[in-house]
Formats: sequence, C-alpha cells, structure tokens
Amino acid sequence: MARAEGLPRRTQDFVGIADAVGVGVLGATGYGGAELIRLLAGHPHARLRAASSRQSAGRSLESQMPSLAGHGLILDDDPQDPEAWVDRGVDVIFSALPHGAFAARAGRFLEAGLKVIDLSGDFRLRDAAEYERRYHMPHPAPDLLESAVYGLTEWRGFHIDCAQLVANPGCYATAILMAALPAVEARLWNGAPIVANALSGVSGAGRAPSLTTHFVECGSGAAPYRVGEEHAHLGEILQMVRSTEPRKTSAGPTAANGSFIFNPHLVPMSRGILASIAIPLDRRQEPDAVRELYRRRYEECPFVRVLDVDALPETRHVRGSNRCDIAVRVAADGTMLLVFAAIDNLVKGAAGQAIQNWNRMQGWPETTGLPLDGFGS
Amino acid sequence: MARAEGLPRRTQDFVGIADAVGVGVLGATGYGGAELIRLLAGHPHARLRAASSRQSAGRSLESQMPSLAGHGLILDDDPQDPEAWVDRGVDVIFSALPHGAFAARAGRFLEAGLKVIDLSGDFRLRDAAEYERRYHMPHPAPDLLESAVYGLTEWRGFHIDCAQLVANPGCYATAILMAALPAVEARLWNGAPIVANALSGVSGAGRAPSLTTHFVECGSGAAPYRVGEEHAHLGEILQMVRSTEPRKTSAGPTAANGSFIFNPHLVPMSRGILASIAIPLDRRQEPDAVRELYRRRYEECPFVRVLDVDALPETRHVRGSNRCDIAVRVAADGTMLLVFAAIDNLVKGAAGQAIQNWNRMQGWPETTGLPLDGFGS
Amino acid sequence: MARAEGLPRRTQDFVGIADAVGVGVLGATGYGGAELIRLLAGHPHARLRAASSRQSAGRSLESQMPSLAGHGLILDDDPQDPEAWVDRGVDVIFSALPHGAFAARAGRFLEAGLKVIDLSGDFRLRDAAEYERRYHMPHPAPDLLESAVYGLTEWRGFHIDCAQLVANPGCYATAILMAALPAVEARLWNGAPIVANALSGVSGAGRAPSLTTHFVECGSGAAPYRVGEEHAHLGEILQMVRSTEPRKTSAGPTAANGSFIFNPHLVPMSRGILASIAIPLDRRQEPDAVRELYRRRYEECPFVRVLDVDALPETRHVRGSNRCDIAVRVAADGTMLLVFAAIDNLVKGAAGQAIQNWNRMQGWPETTGLPLDGFGS
Amino acid sequence: MARAEGLPRRTQDFVGIADAVGVGVLGATGYGGAELIRLLAGHPHARLRAASSRQSAGRSLESQMPSLAGHGLILDDDPQDPEAWVDRGVDVIFSALPHGAFAARAGRFLEAGLKVIDLSGDFRLRDAAEYERRYHMPHPAPDLLESAVYGLTEWRGFHIDCAQLVANPGCYATAILMAALPAVEARLWNGAPIVANALSGVSGAGRAPSLTTHFVECGSGAAPYRVGEEHAHLGEILQMVRSTEPRKTSAGPTAANGSFIFNPHLVPMSRGILASIAIPLDRRQEPDAVRELYRRRYEECPFVRVLDVDALPETRHVRGSNRCDIAVRVAADGTMLLVFAAIDNLVKGAAGQAIQNWNRMQGWPETTGLPLDGFGS
Repeated sequence: MARAEGLPRRTQDFVGIADAVGVGVLGATGYGGAELIRLLAGHPHARLRAASSRQSAGRSLESQMPSLAGHGLILDDDPQDPEAWVDRGVDVIFSALPHGAFAARAGRFLEAGLKVIDLSGDFRLRDAAEYERRYHMPHPAPDLLESAVYGLTEWRGFHIDCAQLVANPGCYATAILMAALPAVEARLWNGAPIVANALSGVSGAGRAPSLTTHFVECGSGAAPYRVGEEHAHLGEILQMVRSTEPRKTSAGPTAANGSFIFNPHLVPMSRGILASIAIPLDRRQEPDAVRELYRRRYEECPFVRVLDVDALPETRHVRGSNRCDIAVRVAADGTMLLVFAAIDNLVKGAAGQAIQNWNRMQGWPETTGLPLDGFGS
Repeated sequence: MARAEGLPRRTQDFVGIADAVGVGVLGATGYGGAELIRLLAGHPHARLRAASSRQSAGRSLESQMPSLAGHGLILDDDPQDPEAWVDRGVDVIFSALPHGAFAARAGRFLEAGLKVIDLSGDFRLRDAAEYERRYHMPHPAPDLLESAVYGLTEWRGFHIDCAQLVANPGCYATAILMAALPAVEARLWNGAPIVANALSGVSGAGRAPSLTTHFVECGSGAAPYRVGEEHAHLGEILQMVRSTEPRKTSAGPTAANGSFIFNPHLVPMSRGILASIAIPLDRRQEPDAVRELYRRRYEECPFVRVLDVDALPETRHVRGSNRCDIAVRVAADGTMLLVFAAIDNLVKGAAGQAIQNWNRMQGWPETTGLPLDGFGS
Repeated sequence: MARAEGLPRRTQDFVGIADAVGVGVLGATGYGGAELIRLLAGHPHARLRAASSRQSAGRSLESQMPSLAGHGLILDDDPQDPEAWVDRGVDVIFSALPHGAFAARAGRFLEAGLKVIDLSGDFRLRDAAEYERRYHMPHPAPDLLESAVYGLTEWRGFHIDCAQLVANPGCYATAILMAALPAVEARLWNGAPIVANALSGVSGAGRAPSLTTHFVECGSGAAPYRVGEEHAHLGEILQMVRSTEPRKTSAGPTAANGSFIFNPHLVPMSRGILASIAIPLDRRQEPDAVRELYRRRYEECPFVRVLDVDALPETRHVRGSNRCDIAVRVAADGTMLLVFAAIDNLVKGAAGQAIQNWNRMQGWPETTGLPLDGFGS
Repeated sequence: MARAEGLPRRTQDFVGIADAVGVGVLGATGYGGAELIRLLAGHPHARLRAASSRQSAGRSLESQMPSLAGHGLILDDDPQDPEAWVDRGVDVIFSALPHGAFAARAGRFLEAGLKVIDLSGDFRLRDAAEYERRYHMPHPAPDLLESAVYGLTEWRGFHIDCAQLVANPGCYATAILMAALPAVEARLWNGAPIVANALSGVSGAGRAPSLTTHFVECGSGAAPYRVGEEHAHLGEILQMVRSTEPRKTSAGPTAANGSFIFNPHLVPMSRGILASIAIPLDRRQEPDAVRELYRRRYEECPFVRVLDVDALPETRHVRGSNRCDIAVRVAADGTMLLVFAAIDNLVKGAAGQAIQNWNRMQGWPETTGLPLDGFGS
C-alpha cells in the first residue's frame, strides 16, 4: 500500500515524522471501519499503513468506499497473523470486524507488541459465561479478558492509559452509560428498574443489505426491536453500572440487583443515538443540584457538554462530532431523574472513541485529531 | 363552492343520495384538515359542502393543497356563524383549527343543530382550571365542557353514539392511552410512575414554517422536547387514566395520585407516532396472560391489532391506516409491563378517529370509509 | 383463502354482488403487488380471491406485508396453471412478477378465459428481437405479442377497451410518454435528440435488499444510473413515440430516426417519478399555445392535470394518487420545449394504471376505485 | 471573543504561531457561515477572531448553532466598518451574507487592507447591468467589479493567487461549470442549447424557515423550480462559458450566442448537488477520448476525480468533501456529450471552495485544511 508521489498535503504532513505511528484497520469497508479511516486521515500522528476487507481484498479502497479519496490504497485480505503488517510498519490495530471474527487471533497481534483496539463486543465483558449468554457462542479467547480494558474513556481513562488491549464500548452502551453513571456513582438510584429508551440511526445496523435496512422499509417510520432485556449491550451496561456503584451502607436494594430495561428503536437517520433514561431516585432531588453534579463529574472531559436548563440534546448537533451532549431533568415530584444523551454512533459510539482511547494509550491529548464540531447539516 | 359538471365519478357516487350528509371542514389547509378532506372523499356518505381557511379564503383548495384534486372547491373564510354553511347543506362540522380558535363560537353551531367534532384540545378536559393550566389561557366556553364527549372511540364508544359535540383526542394521547388503559382498567398498575416515551412524525408539529420543522434542522436527527411533565397532552392522558381505573380496595397508591412521565421526541418521518410505555406492575405477570387480556379488551375493535409474541409495531405499518398496532412484553422479572403502540398521527391520531367518531354518531359501522390498510411505502 | 366471518364492512360491501369480479394477484409481496392489493381493497367491484408469493407461500399476507390488514388471507404458491384459481372464482389476473417470470404461462391463463394485466416488461414491445436486445433474454411467448395492448391508458384507451391481455407500461415510460406524446403527435419535435432526465423513488428499485437500496447508501444522496441509452424502458418509449408521430411531408428528420437520451436518477424518497424533458422544436412556439395544446389533448382524461403557467409538478402532490401532473415551458428563444411530469411510480406508474386499464376492459368509468387525491404528507 | 483558558487542543495548535492568520466570518448562523467555521476549525493556519450574525448578535455561537462546539465565541453584530475587527487581528473576511447585504461596504474592508472572499452573488458578474437583470436590484458597488476575481479555483487559479477580492461561485454554477468547461474549452460544443438538469439538497435553500423547506413539504418528494432560463446562476455560467470558449475560425454558431437551459430541482437531502448535462457536439466523439480530455484538463487538480468508464458520481460520495466527482458519457451516436458532476453544495459549492481560494491567495497548498474524504454516512 504505497502512497503515490505528489499527493496533496494533508494535516498530518505538518507534523514531524518522529511523531508518526503506523496504523492498520481490519474491516475497512463497514461503516465503522470507513469512519476510522476518515478520522485517521485528519489525525496528526496517524499513518495508515494497511487496511483489510474480507469481501473486497485486492480492490482499491476508493472503489469500495467511494466517499474516501483512497489515495490508491489497495485492500488486504483479513490478516490472520501480524507479521506482514508489522513489516509494513503497523504499530496499532483497530479491528472493526463483527464479534467473534478477530478475538481468536488477537493474542498473536498482542504478542507481536501491537496495541489493539477492538470495536466489537468480544472483549467488553469480563466474564466468559456472560459473553456466551449475550452472544450465543463460547468466548474465543477467554484468557485475554482479564487484561482487556473497557474503553469508556471518560470513566476508565487511567486504566486505558497503560492498556495494550482496549475493548471499545458499544454505541448504545456509550450513550446510556454516559447518561446514567454520574447518578449511579453518586448513589442517587434507588435500585428500582431504570427505563432506558434509545433511538439509533440505520448505520448502527451495519452495511450488509437486509429488509430491515431497505430504504423503503425503514426510511419513513420508527420501529422498536429487541426490547426489554434482549439486547446484547445490556451485558456491558450492567457490568459498568455495578462496578461504578459505591457500596451502600443501608440495607435497601442496590444496583447489584437492580434491573435495567432497554428499548432500542430504529429511526430514519443515518447516524446518531439518542438515549432517554428514567432513573428512580433514592431520595427527592432538585434539578439544579443534579445538573451541577453532572457538570462537576464531566468538567475535565472535553467531549462532554452538559446542557443548560432549557436545552435538550439532539443527534443532529453531534453528528460527525466525538461529543456527547447531555441534559438532566427531574420529574414525578423529585423522585425520578430523566437524563437525555446524544452521540454519533459512528464517532463517540465507535471510531471516534476508539481514537480517543488510542490517544490516551499514546499519551497524547485526548482530543488529538478528533472533531469537536458536528457536521451541522 | 359549486362542483363542476362532468367530474369523474367517485366512490360516493355509488351510494344513494338518501344516505348523504353534508360536511364542512374548518382549517382545511393544515395537515389535519387536508387529511380530513382526503378521507372524506372516500367516505360513501360524506358530501363536502364547505371548507375554510383563515389565510387562504377565496383561493382554490387545489392551489393551497396541490395533493388534493380539489374539484374546483373555493376556500371560504373561517365562518363565525353557522347560517351560511347551514344554507349550503352542512350538517356536521369538523374543526381542525388550533386550540382557542373555534371554541368560543362552537355553541352557536351546536344550537343550529349541527354535530361538531373538534380536533383541537379545547373540549378534551372536563375541568376548565386544568385547561387553563395546560394551555395557558382561560377556557373560551366552559359551559360546553360537560356535554362534550372525549372521542377515544374504543373507550368511549357508547357515549359518542349519542353525542353532539365530540372532542377528538390528541395524537400522543391516543397512542399512549390505547397502550396503557387495558392494564389500568385491569388494575395491573401499582401506581409508581409510568414512563412513556413517544416518537412523532413532523406533521405533528403543524404546517406553519419554523426552524424546528426545517428539513435541514429535523431531517437527519432525533430530538426530545417538552419532556417530563411539560406536554399539554398529559392533561387528557391523566384524566382518562383516572376515570378508567376501578376503585382500589387496598390502601396502596392508585392512579389517582400516580404520576405519568411523558417524553415526546421528533424524528425524521412525515407521519406516525410510536409510543413505548413502561408500567410498574402491582404483582408479577406472565406475558401471555397480559397479551390475552389486551386481546380480549380489543376483540370487538376493528382498528386495533394486538400483535403476536414475536412482533413489534412500526409506524410504517399503520401509515395511512386508521389502525392502532399494539405489542405487549413483560420485563424485570415480571414486575414491569412494556407496551408499544403505533398509529398514524394524522389518521387514528386526528382525521381518521374523527371520522370513526362521526360514524358512531350517525349509527354507521365504525369502519365506514376508513382505510384499514396502510400506505406501505 | 376464505374471508373470516364478521369482518368490518368495506366500501365494496355497499355495491351489489352482481357487479363483483374475482381478482387474483401474482407477486403479492413486492411493492407493486402490495399496492394492487391496497387499491383493490377500495375498489367497489373487486373481490380479491387469491394472491401468490414465490418466497412466502403458506404464510399470511399480513405477516409478510404488515401494512396490509390482510383479513387472514394466506398466500398461495405462484400458480403455474389457471385451474385452481378459476375454481376459486378468479376472473382477472394482475401479475406483478418481474420480467421473464410469468410470460411463458400467460397463454394458459388467457385460454382459460381470464383477463390478464401484466405489470412486467414482457408484453410491452411488439418486436421479440427488440425485447431480447433490451432484456437480454429470448422472449418467452412471442406469439402473444401481437394481441397484447400497451396500457398507457390515455393514449391507447380504445384498444384497451376490448383487450384480453394488457401490458402495463413501465413507470419511467409512463411519466416520459405522458410528457412527450402531445408534442410528438402535434409534430412539434424537430427530430434532434430529446433529453429526458428523471428522478425515481427507491420503491422503483424493488423490494429485494441490495447495497443500492440500503438506507445509509441511498438515504441522503442522489445518484444517476444506466444513463444515456442504457435503460430498458427506452424500448417502449421509442416504440410509442414512433407509433404516435404522424407522417411528415417534409424531408427533414423524424422521430423514426430521432433519438432519445434518458438519464434516470435515484433520489431519497419512497415513491414518485419526476420527469424533466427537453424537446427541440421544429419551429418557434409560444408557451401559452403549447400549454393549450396539452390541455386540449388531455381534457377528457380525469387523471391528468396540466398546470397553470406559474406552477410546476412535484412528486409529493401525486404521491398515492393515480394522477399525472404536467407543466409546459418554452426556452431558448422558443426553440426548446420543456415538459415536466410527476406521477407516483406505484400508482399511475404501476398498480393504479393497471386498475385504470382494468376499469376500461370491464366498461366501468376509468376512475372507479382509484384515488384522485394524493397522500399529501 | 476571547478564547477561554484550558480549552482542548485542536489541530491548529500544532502549527507555529508565525503561520497564523486572523479570520472573520460574516453571517455565521447560516448554513454557509457555519460550514466555514467548522472547516476553519480544522485549518492549520486559521485563527477565528470574530464572527457576526445580524439576528443573533450578543448570543453565543454555540447557542445558535449547537453543532459547533463554539468555545465560548460570542457573535458580533454585522460590522459596518473594518476597524473593530482589524483591531482584533482579523486579516481576511469571509462574507456568507445574502446578495446585496455586504457589497456596499466591501470597499472599506478592502481599503483597510483586508482580503475579502464573498460567497454571495454580488461580485461574480463583471457587468453591472447583467447583475441588475439577474438580481433585480442595481449593483451596490459597480466600481469593484473589475478587480473582483471569479473564484472557480480550477479555472481561475492564477488570477486568484494575486486577488484581494474573490467572488466565490454559486453552488449550481460550480457543478455545472466544472462539468461543461473542458468540453467548451476544447471546442466540442456545437452551440445548440446545452440542457443542464441539477438536483440540490435543501441546505441550498438557506436556513430561513419557509413552506418550501418544511420537512413535510420537501422531505418525501422531488420538485423542479425556476426552470428554463430563470435561475440567477445562469448569469455566471454563461459568463464563464463565453470567456472560456476559444475563438472559432469557422462561421458556425458559437458559445457566444449558444444558449443554456438550466432546470434546478430540490430533492430530500441536506447537502449535495448533482448536475446532469447534455452538450450537443460539433463532431462525433468517442467516449474514451473525451474522458481522457477531461482527465488531462484536471490532472493537476487535487479535488477533481474523473471517474472510470463504469462509474457515475453520487452526492453521497462527496458529502462533506471539497471534491468534485465527474463522469463522461457519449450518446446519440456520438453526437451528444453527457457529463455528470457531484459536489457538496456547502463545501466545494460554498465554504470549501472559499477556503481553497484563500489557500491560493495566501500561497499555501490548495488542499490545506480541506477534507478530501466525504462523510460517507
């Protein structure tokens, strides 16, 4: 994958070569993989050295993803071993393959000294049995689970700094956890079921054609699916909630046995997740106090915007951005906390957060090469 | 508004003239009014005698609503008194004007012997003080509130049969009540807050241009608005919930003081409402038993479809139809009931239900002239 | 396919049983087939007796097309012979199968005395060699070509009246021919290439999932395809143009050797075709004169609306309607005629025109059971 | 507009301060202005010093354009004189105001030594009378017309290098001229009318709410408007065509009196322009030869991609990119050239090309800070 001579200069050309790190992307022709390549093209330290596609090996990236300029990059077959890519100067792997596709060989890439950021669900759960329950297959590499760090950057930052293997969170889980965790951490939740409704753009359903994603079938309506307790992301949501909640001194119900209802819906937009969460409160709360709690929790987080009292997040405002916009309300006479969060499922919910994690793994500022502004239109 | 000679024959021409009833529509150039005219054109007993528009009086219907064939109909100015329309043979008025616009003169139309079906919020609440609290203005005709019948057809049918003034329900209220009332009536709800999320198509925001309804602002994202307890439809929702719940014998909380959290969202579709409701249960329930309860409650209702165990409603499936599709699930170890309901906000949520109510007022079958099939695409 | 007892009454129940005709639909689970079923449900004389689907035989119509109420109809396998359907009382067949799928057995259905309206491209071209050139396969039943009538209703009406086999026109061809033929018939065209651009909704690409119809791929952009002289509909367009043009007395170029450039584009809408056509003129024309010519040509056609001087057609205005809206302009100092036409590709471009043709074949008014109004929103 | 301390680092922070240029944006709350701010945030040399909005002066940028991170920037009132902005370090003005709003005071900004890039139509036409004809008002600053350079970068590059006032082209004009000019320059056009159809996303209609841009009115249909010879962009199109065409030696018709038919259409997408152009040829051409001609013309142009024989441009592929994708076909037995071009109306059609021009004015590589990749989804 040589770069042709005389190409136009890009942002990264302004950065000294000493800072450059070689990157490889697995699964480059899905929506997550393509977004990684788009964002890495604007990252001052990234040098894309290789990209693979199981279906399109040997073809040009540009022909398979015409939105990308491509620069003559030819897609590799999905690499089974790290050698060839190490020889090409790859230092870090982003895997955008579906779950079950990469985990079995992840160990070989780690042993070769590569950093690995996996966007699938494979390394998110610490418990192989829970994995099997959620994904209906035995875990392909259970011995790696202990060392994997769950990459919800704002909540696991210090662990990510020194990780070699990061499990990038699911898009729904990112939005819901960003909305719920400050309340959980502050012991506001009374343990009765949290009701989380979420709306997703169609890119979240993947690029493989199906009746579900046919324009005429999904383009002018809204549809719930896998509601209640069926969606696989509930595993990582509950795991993070339980590890975040402080021990209770009282004898009441706790998050450890509290339940979480999650109703995902598909709506006619390409990108975006909007989560609307209702958290039953342990004691009456004032809205300003909870908003202030959220502000303090996120004040060091450049991508989180806790909105003013009158504003509510919209997916349009974060489309193309790595931000997470959050609003906080209190209802039912102070007994129910409502939190609304919006992210771009392909950015903060996938490729953007993966790069955010990589930035931390490399010791760069978290925002390096990542968009704060959304597309807007 | 003479009809031109030689017009093509329509369905209604096959029905004897003895069955014909003269209809007038106020507010014909909004989305609700135009949908009324479209549906009435296929109704075997309806003869459209007059239609008004405050902004477009004197212009042809066709020029203001080019999707309608129009047949040379010229729009009247908004009639202040019934005389002229009575002279033209109008027997029933459908008012699709916004709240506050028609109520003050409704009495004059009723006294002239006309039936009135009002699609605004003006006659839905029995209590003028509650109206003022929800709509931020004194009620224009409080003496009519007692005789007005709330037109949620499947729940108020016998009262509608002999009504002269029907208050057509709000679109959100229709979807949420159709989903919640069977559980309330059967005393399944434990009185803890019900969480109702709902998604609406943009026609629900009306036809007046605004930044909110600008294609670029709302066309590729999802946005919550007036969340928690802010939306005016909560008034009619709570009123119907409280009048439906049977007296409790136990001392526990009841719907009378139970609260209702309602989070509406705008999503990029023209039509449709999808409601996702979580009802905390009084005692553990099996999903099959609750589904059977819903089936029995609605078995005489031709427009309600309680879906099978694996199916979930989608707004696309009811777009253009007067149906309400409902699915029932149980979560949180049997302690939380999840109900999903889909309607077309302009049909079952407005013009269709108005005609359904009119059918009952006239003694015709409820389905007369109303579409069971959706547009599909 | 028995209809359950006690079903809600529909429009057709108001019509005497003597007028009823039994209908069968082949290919009921595609967009064209489903639209036929939706429209036939509102047709006063139609009684749907059978419907087939190659993929979904044995399942309920409702489960495969949830927008349709279905009434318990169970899908048949694609019938190879007419006997079973004749026994069930089928008098007319609408085939919504793709080209090449039905033609070989069409003869058997015709011999059994059934009327046949075929929505595929199989019987549109009179010349089997031209069919092979356009569809890349030998014609399956060349001996039927002579008796088949091309069903562009407004132009072939009298031939349709006594036809047994009607070839329903292509959706693009319908829009383009309705726009071009009055000028061709009046000898306005000078024979230099006509440039026809057209925009189609995604339902025109069929219901089979593909990358082309994936929401994320087609939902936010416009794309030309098969441009120039590649699209199969050019065959029927040129055939109709050449059979409509009167003999020229001058020695100049004629339509017989004039060419037609046709650039179709896919745009993000479910339904609709908008054709924009530029016709080089034989001599300078005044716009009012040409508009008057179009008005006169279509004055007996209830579904055609030639718009006023300032108006232009929009697909939204005809969505759900069987209308064709047309506007006429003159440019380039009177030497170029511009014609714009909008139809709904599933109604006037498919199922609606099929029923319009059937109405003529039965001797009913052309508009029987067909919508003049569009959905509007 | 002070920047708060401790803000996250952005790409530009990696570039030495010596290279920084102060930028001011007029009309920051329209779609063009917001896109300028978004793109300038990723430009290594740009430092946004001031931004104005006539309606929203005194409010934060973020509150008016929530997709932008904003960094606490407070919007100025529209500046009538350059002094305040010069004091704040503004070196270059991008005006995204509508036509007629800035031109009268442009001279004062130029005299103050500022570079000015105007995105309106005010400085595109060299002839004040032609301006009055196209924009229906006298030109506000006719004496500046001579020094203004038309900023179609790929065609006026050397003139732009030393310009102080650049008139950024219209979005439609950009797509159409990029498609047509290579053929015009090579004398392929025979002077008979060129037919240019174009499809535009709704952001091209501006951010002011109107019935035209209401989601329900434009969100599910396609609509032509100002067709034939009505659209104002025809002025700049014809001016560029005539100045590009070489003198003919033969006596035949030339571009100087050849006409241009331009039919714009609004389609339901936020961004994008697709132009489909038919150019009658002077002599028969082979498609490969014309494609090679286009390739050679654009081979030094980093943002132009002349597609391979089987490919056609789609707006989705250039959404968010400053690229122009072009495909070339030949039809009608070699006598008609078809050219298809896709751009993002807000990037190459507005803000992106404005920055591309600024890059040339500053002597930086044309691609500096500009995206080659599109959003993709």
